[in-house]
Amino acid sequence: MRDFSADHSALALNTATLGHNVDGQGAGWSPEQVIDACADRGYGAIAFWRREIGSRAHKVGERTRAAGLEVCGLCRAPFLVGPLAPKPRSAVVDDFHASIDMAAELGAACLTICVGGVVAGSHSMRESLKLVAELVAEAAPRAAAGGLTLALEPLNPVYGGNRSCLVTTRDAVDMVEAIGHPAVTVAVDVYHVWWDLGLSEQLRRLGGHRIAGYHLCDWLADTTDVLLDRGMMGDGVADLKHIREAVEGAGYRGYCEVEIFSSNNWWKCDPNEVLDVCIERFKSVC
Amino acid sequence: MRDFSADHSALALNTATLGHNVDGQGAGWSPEQVIDACADRGYGAIAFWRREIGSRAHKVGERTRAAGLEVCGLCRAPFLVGPLAPKPRSAVVDDFHASIDMAAELGAACLTICVGGVVAGSHSMRESLKLVAELVAEAAPRAAAGGLTLALEPLNPVYGGNRSCLVTTRDAVDMVEAIGHPAVTVAVDVYHVWWDLGLSEQLRRLGGHRIAGYHLCDWLADTTDVLLDRGMMGDGVADLKHIREAVEGAGYRGYCEVEIFSSNNWWKCDPNEVLDVCIERFKSVC
Repeated sequence: MRDFSADHSALALNTATLGHNVDGQGAGWSPEQVIDACADRGYGAIAFWRREIGSRAHKVGERTRAAGLEVCGLCRAPFLVGPLAPKPRSAVVDDFHASIDMAAELGAACLTICVGGVVAGSHSMRESLKLVAELVAEAAPRAAAGGLTLALEPLNPVYGGNRSCLVTTRDAVDMVEAIGHPAVTVAVDVYHVWWDLGLSEQLRRLGGHRIAGYHLCDWLADTTDVLLDRGMMGDGVADLKHIREAVEGAGYRGYCEVEIFSSNNWWKCDPNEVLDVCIERFKSVC
Repeated sequence: MRDFSADHSALALNTATLGHNVDGQGAGWSPEQVIDACADRGYGAIAFWRREIGSRAHKVGERTRAAGLEVCGLCRAPFLVGPLAPKPRSAVVDDFHASIDMAAELGAACLTICVGGVVAGSHSMRESLKLVAELVAEAAPRAAAGGLTLALEPLNPVYGGNRSCLVTTRDAVDMVEAIGHPAVTVAVDVYHVWWDLGLSEQLRRLGGHRIAGYHLCDWLADTTDVLLDRGMMGDGVADLKHIREAVEGAGYRGYCEVEIFSSNNWWKCDPNEVLDVCIERFKSVC
C-alpha cells in the first residue's frame, strides 16, 4: 500500500468539498481560485462540477494543467433513469452527450455517473439497471473518442429509490463486465461503500485499470443528513485504511479525491482551512 | 410461491405499524385491543414490542393464543454494541437476557436483534461484528431453553454507524454459520434488503429453517426520513414479489409480518383502516 505520510501528491480535491458554488453555500471561489490554492499546497489533481465550468471547459482545463495539476474528473452525467432523470429519454441522451463533450474539452480523465433511481412503476432494480447499461454502452465510444472514461459510481443503498439503482460495487462490476467497453469504469467512494465487507473481492474482479477514481470522506456515526452531512476523514466510522487496501489491492494507483458534502460544517469553514485539514488527514488517517 | 390473493392467514402484524404506543404517536391501543382487531380480521400472528408488554408477558401471550393468533416475535434485544448500546457491557448482557426471558414468557417464536453500530474508535465493522457474535453465541442456549430463536436482522447500510454494523444478508448468514447454534436465525426485512440483488443467493445458503421472519413494508422513492418514513406495500419501489420469491425459494413458509414505521402518514390514520389496508395490499401486491 502506498505511504502518504510524507507525500500527498496523490491527493486530489473534488470542488464539492468547498461547497462548489451551490447557491448560498460554500466559499463561492472561482475555478481559478481553487486551482491556485490547490497548486500552492501540492495537491495533485482537481475534479470539477459542470455548474462551475459553463462554456469555459477548455480554458479551465488548460489553466489547471499550467498550474501543475491534472483534471481527474468531471461531475457529472445527468441521472440516466428514475424520478430525477430529465424527461423525455432524448433529453437524457442529449445531456449525457453534452457532459461527455465538456469532460473531453476539459481534459478530464473521467466523467462520473450517478445513474438515477429505480424507474417509476417498474418496481425493479434489475430492469432499471438494464436501461442504464444500454445508455452507458451507447455513450462509451463517444467517451473513448474524447479521451476519457465513464465512471459508474455505485451509491449507498439509501439512494436506491431516487438517485441510484446502482448501489453495490458488485452490481457496478457486473455492469462493466456486461458492457465490456474499455471506456466504462467504476468510481469507488468511501461514503457509498464503507459498509461493504465484500469490497475487496469485487474490486479484484474489476481490476485497478478499470477503477477510475477513489473518493475520500468519512461516514459519521450520528449522521444527520444522508446527502449533505459527510464527515472529514478520521471523524467517522469508516475503516479508511482497509478500504484503500482493497482499492490498491486491485491494482489502483491513481488519485485519492476528497469529496465532502457538508452544508452545516465544512462548507461553513474558510476554504483554506478545509484544504489544509484535508492534507493533514490524508497523511495521517487515510 | 404461496398464493395469498384469497388467503391472508400468513399475514402478521408488527405493532409498530400502529405507532406501537410511542409517546404521542399512534393510536395508543393496548395489546388486547390489537389482538382483538387482528383476530377479527383473520391475521395469523402478532409481533409485540417490549415497551407494550411490561410485566404482563405471560398474560399477553395467552390472550393472543386464546384469540387464535400466534406471537411470531418480540422486538427487541438491546443494541449489543456501538454508540446506542447500554453501558457498561454487563448492562448489555443483563438487558439481553431480560429480553430473552420476556420473549420466552410471551411464547414468542423469536426475539429480534438489531445489533448496534460500529464500536466507537474501532473504525471496524469486522471487529464490531466479532463482539456481536460473541454476545449472541453466549445467549443462544438461554434462547433455546426458552423455546425461541434469536433473529439477527441485517439493517439497511444507512444505519451502519449507529444502529447496526450488520448491514447485509451475507454478513448475517456468515454470522449464523460462524455461531452454528440452532437458536440463531435471521430476520429478513424488505426495508433493509430491497436493494440487494444477491439476496436470493444468500438466503439459499442460509436455508428456510434459519429464517425467523419476513417483514413487509415498502421503500418510498422520495423517502424523507430513514427511520420513520416507511411505505405501505405497493407505494414504493421495492420488488416485493421477487423478494418473497427469494425468501420462499430458500424454504421459508412462515408469517409475513407488516412492520411500517410512519410517523407522518400511517401512524396518523385510524388503526382499523391501517389493518384493512395491510390485508388488501398483502393480497394484491406482496
